[in-house]
Amino acid sequence: MDLDVAVIGGGCSGTYSAWRLQQEVGADQKIALFEYSDRIGGRLYSVTVPGVPHVKAELGGMRFIPDQHIMVADLVSHLGLETRDFPMGAPAPVGSNCNLFYLRGRHFRLHELSDPDKVPYNLAWSERGLGPTNLQVQAMNNLYPNFGSLSLCDQMKVKVFGKPIWKYGFWNLMFRVLSNEGYQFMRDAGGYDANVANASAVTQLPATEYSDDTKFLCLRDGFEQLPITLAKQFNEQFDGKLAKGKRVYMNHRLEEIIVGDGEYPYTLIFRPTETREAKTYILEDEDTTRVRCKKLILGLPRRSLELIKSTLFDDPWLKKNLDSVLIQSAFKLFLAYESPWWRSLGLVAGRAVTDLPVRQVYYFGTEAEQEGGYPFLNSLLMATYNDISTVPFWKGLEVAKDDVAAQYKGYMPACMEPGVTDPMPVTPFPASAEMVQVANLQVATVHALPEIPNPYSAVYHSWNEDPYGGGWHEWKAGYRLDEIMCRMRKPIPDQDVHIVGEAYSYGQGWVEGALDTAESMLQDFFGLKPPKWLDPSYQLMPNPCPGCGDLDGCVECWNADQSLPSMTPNCLAPVEEG
Amino acid sequence: MDLDVAVIGGGCSGTYSAWRLQQEVGADQKIALFEYSDRIGGRLYSVTVPGVPHVKAELGGMRFIPDQHIMVADLVSHLGLETRDFPMGAPAPVGSNCNLFYLRGRHFRLHELSDPDKVPYNLAWSERGLGPTNLQVQAMNNLYPNFGSLSLCDQMKVKVFGKPIWKYGFWNLMFRVLSNEGYQFMRDAGGYDANVANASAVTQLPATEYSDDTKFLCLRDGFEQLPITLAKQFNEQFDGKLAKGKRVYMNHRLEEIIVGDGEYPYTLIFRPTETREAKTYILEDEDTTRVRCKKLILGLPRRSLELIKSTLFDDPWLKKNLDSVLIQSAFKLFLAYESPWWRSLGLVAGRAVTDLPVRQVYYFGTEAEQEGGYPFLNSLLMATYNDISTVPFWKGLEVAKDDVAAQYKGYMPACMEPGVTDPMPVTPFPASAEMVQVANLQVATVHALPEIPNPYSAVYHSWNEDPYGGGWHEWKAGYRLDEIMCRMRKPIPDQDVHIVGEAYSYGQGWVEGALDTAESMLQDFFGLKPPKWLDPSYQLMPNPCPGCGDLDGCVECWNADQSLPSMTPNCLAPVEEG
Repeated sequence: MDLDVAVIGGGCSGTYSAWRLQQEVGADQKIALFEYSDRIGGRLYSVTVPGVPHVKAELGGMRFIPDQHIMVADLVSHLGLETRDFPMGAPAPVGSNCNLFYLRGRHFRLHELSDPDKVPYNLAWSERGLGPTNLQVQAMNNLYPNFGSLSLCDQMKVKVFGKPIWKYGFWNLMFRVLSNEGYQFMRDAGGYDANVANASAVTQLPATEYSDDTKFLCLRDGFEQLPITLAKQFNEQFDGKLAKGKRVYMNHRLEEIIVGDGEYPYTLIFRPTETREAKTYILEDEDTTRVRCKKLILGLPRRSLELIKSTLFDDPWLKKNLDSVLIQSAFKLFLAYESPWWRSLGLVAGRAVTDLPVRQVYYFGTEAEQEGGYPFLNSLLMATYNDISTVPFWKGLEVAKDDVAAQYKGYMPACMEPGVTDPMPVTPFPASAEMVQVANLQVATVHALPEIPNPYSAVYHSWNEDPYGGGWHEWKAGYRLDEIMCRMRKPIPDQDVHIVGEAYSYGQGWVEGALDTAESMLQDFFGLKPPKWLDPSYQLMPNPCPGCGDLDGCVECWNADQSLPSMTPNCLAPVEEG
Repeated sequence: MDLDVAVIGGGCSGTYSAWRLQQEVGADQKIALFEYSDRIGGRLYSVTVPGVPHVKAELGGMRFIPDQHIMVADLVSHLGLETRDFPMGAPAPVGSNCNLFYLRGRHFRLHELSDPDKVPYNLAWSERGLGPTNLQVQAMNNLYPNFGSLSLCDQMKVKVFGKPIWKYGFWNLMFRVLSNEGYQFMRDAGGYDANVANASAVTQLPATEYSDDTKFLCLRDGFEQLPITLAKQFNEQFDGKLAKGKRVYMNHRLEEIIVGDGEYPYTLIFRPTETREAKTYILEDEDTTRVRCKKLILGLPRRSLELIKSTLFDDPWLKKNLDSVLIQSAFKLFLAYESPWWRSLGLVAGRAVTDLPVRQVYYFGTEAEQEGGYPFLNSLLMATYNDISTVPFWKGLEVAKDDVAAQYKGYMPACMEPGVTDPMPVTPFPASAEMVQVANLQVATVHALPEIPNPYSAVYHSWNEDPYGGGWHEWKAGYRLDEIMCRMRKPIPDQDVHIVGEAYSYGQGWVEGALDTAESMLQDFFGLKPPKWLDPSYQLMPNPCPGCGDLDGCVECWNADQSLPSMTPNCLAPVEEG
């Protein structure tokens, strides 16, 4: 098969790229999408748990912020996907104020975290009375007032303690302005290890996610409907060179990229995979297939890229900068109960946070309360959402796919939709009885209840295995992320190979980062115009120099004419390296 | 070059294997040793800091326990290497009782840790009044009284809460018997993250290292003198087939092992390396050299093995079980001062422990007090010894080899031995000014001193980079470590390839594990008799079945005749898998 454009990866950046190209140039060009598994979605993975079919278990990414994630919001609206609120607490006026915290063996409501006599951390005088969010805001303002409202271009120029801020790890920087106990409090009560890992201070410092009144949305039918809809439309759209409905190739693992020359310089070697009970296996003994293409789009995260053999990765720039992001592991376990037992404690939505290994508990919702839901009280709890240092705790409770005896069986609840005979959904990782027992016990401890019901169903996902590598990425300290995210879209000047996705973006950990890198790559290297459905004032991530229009030439332009506007958020104006 | 035996790796297991073989069969066989860098020692690395030449900075392994590490003790004695005490506290009767702890922003002496009113952890009633060591002993005895005194064979048969203990991660198991605060206390006050990682409960539970009256020894001239002496004697010993002094090949990186047949089935492809200012670089553009051998000994840790290309690693057993150990990162920074300022606080030797990123501070000693030392008050402090979760903090303060401006320069102290013009030693990683400043500030905080002197010199090493991968290894939960450590010595039945070293041993984290695997491999697969200098009652790690003498056949023997003695510590008698 010979293609004009081959797109690799059935996640958001891959499906978006294929869909956009097909719409704009599909009548003239042969485009195809290849996916490793039997599933479109990548790190969006929405599972239907029996008994709560209208409350999706989001095993991967679960939400977006409509005020900040303009591309996601506009695209969702354009595709006509139904959204619903993802509240972080009780209805107004309570909000998240009464959310539960269990830290160092003590229970609090969120509003109590700002009572210095109750907080069991030995805070410095300047830290007392601040909750974890305000603590970080104070630290940021101490270093550089309103740092978060600067453009990336300007952030890259900020120096603190005599060194550019982009050279600092966030942990190292916090250690200069917070006590160790203040830092531990921020880490424990913040819920995520990733927020306080030693990643680049430039992207960690603004702490936009912490705000208690951030408004989140999710998709009613599951976040994975976004890439699934894109893939479906791509497959069926127009009447291009490929037969209709034959543009998406599932269960194709890209094993090697051979670089040659001529009209089709890239030969892609695909190894077939097989998915059995939702788990995908590489069929090492089966023959590979070959596809040639003119241009190649890799919509893949760092680890997936590292698993591909190719001389492309010997390029010195690419070799060095693939390494510029940290791969963060994450783990989510959902438990389904016959009633929302947490409601009697005044807990409606949002999360409880603890320093136990479960770390974050999210109240997902009750079937009967969903639009079109069955009249069941069955309810879904995300019993743990944890990352980095607690992931090994949960990995230690996993069992093998074939160890059926050790797997959690659940039970049939009193209320169940028709046709369901097994309460357990089928996913790549079967929950073990011990994992469910340990998580349920910790959830009871977090809520200070002597006993809670056993869940009738359970489903989890561990985001640290191949081919994904992790749940999301963070820029490392000491890397020029503004330059790298820009160039990664075409890392080798004389090769038509493009890397897009969340991993090397200005929206790491969010779908926005995946769409943003993909759209800007399509505009800059495939000549696409901005889509009509996108807010025309939306500023895509890397912008060409307003002086010369070139992506690499603007240091000179800016030096020659410093009145040129800063390119927001990415500007190649001189950044002091010292 | 054609060899009877090629030994790869200039660490303890490699040099020991080469030395023993040369002594026993060197007159008839051609044996050579190949090392990646320009340094013999592997993860033993003893650096002389100017001004304190008689107090070695042990950047890697630093000590052994003569009562437990019989092979190391007997070998050190046989080689005539000078030892000295490695005290963990003040002279008797104080001992370690007055060692300093700084946890959750509060200061304690060790004896205060058992005062429940002082300890800032919200411990359960049963945990109050126990220091971290006794807490672990209590937890162990709760699960299985005296577990630590069982043979590994018997430990593998122990079940707790209905599951074999070898299937538990230590963290998961502790969570069933300790409160979260009890566990955090054990982790913070224990000093090492590795002790509480989620590695196999079988090897973690006994907690032998904690005891306050364990007697440690170190080598007067640096621990690396052990492998250096072995390599030197190997090189010069006897008059074998190779010219004298030509048996050790430095700066040889084993890139690939090609497996063929015939008399010399293994072709080793070596890429030359170059060491500049103590840092070793692979010379990718230079030609490789080829060596053929009949037998191959890989004295290498997991990551080093993973970096070698070879179809050997496609063997299903080896592929699966290379993965059976965790690679633990570690970081050590030494600071040298003109006086032992800590002595005035009653701190003489041993360590202070904290939850700050420095984690452990060791008082190494004063030049004037060393045997043969200069009359200088100059003193060496290991300002941080930390592992796993704090390593990223320190990695964030590193600078590149060529960023000379950011490197710490130190200053010339008043007392200095003749001929020294620069107070800074040259090692692969140059300490940055910021790293030294941050560490010195934390050391002052740990000691509750408003100010301490600036160090005149600094040296550090980060054990997480290639080719070592980490500082040491821990067995993962759920692996049959008794079988794996035995078979790893000859992992592929029809190949004469042997893997030895600390990584897959019953003495992980210690030199004893490296020597033990090497010696037992030499006895079982090269027919060597036990060395005369070794205590004849010493029990090597894996033993053949007393029934049939075979390493793989003894499940059958034991089933047929259960009166056969347990093989200590490794026995392949039936272990319940359920």
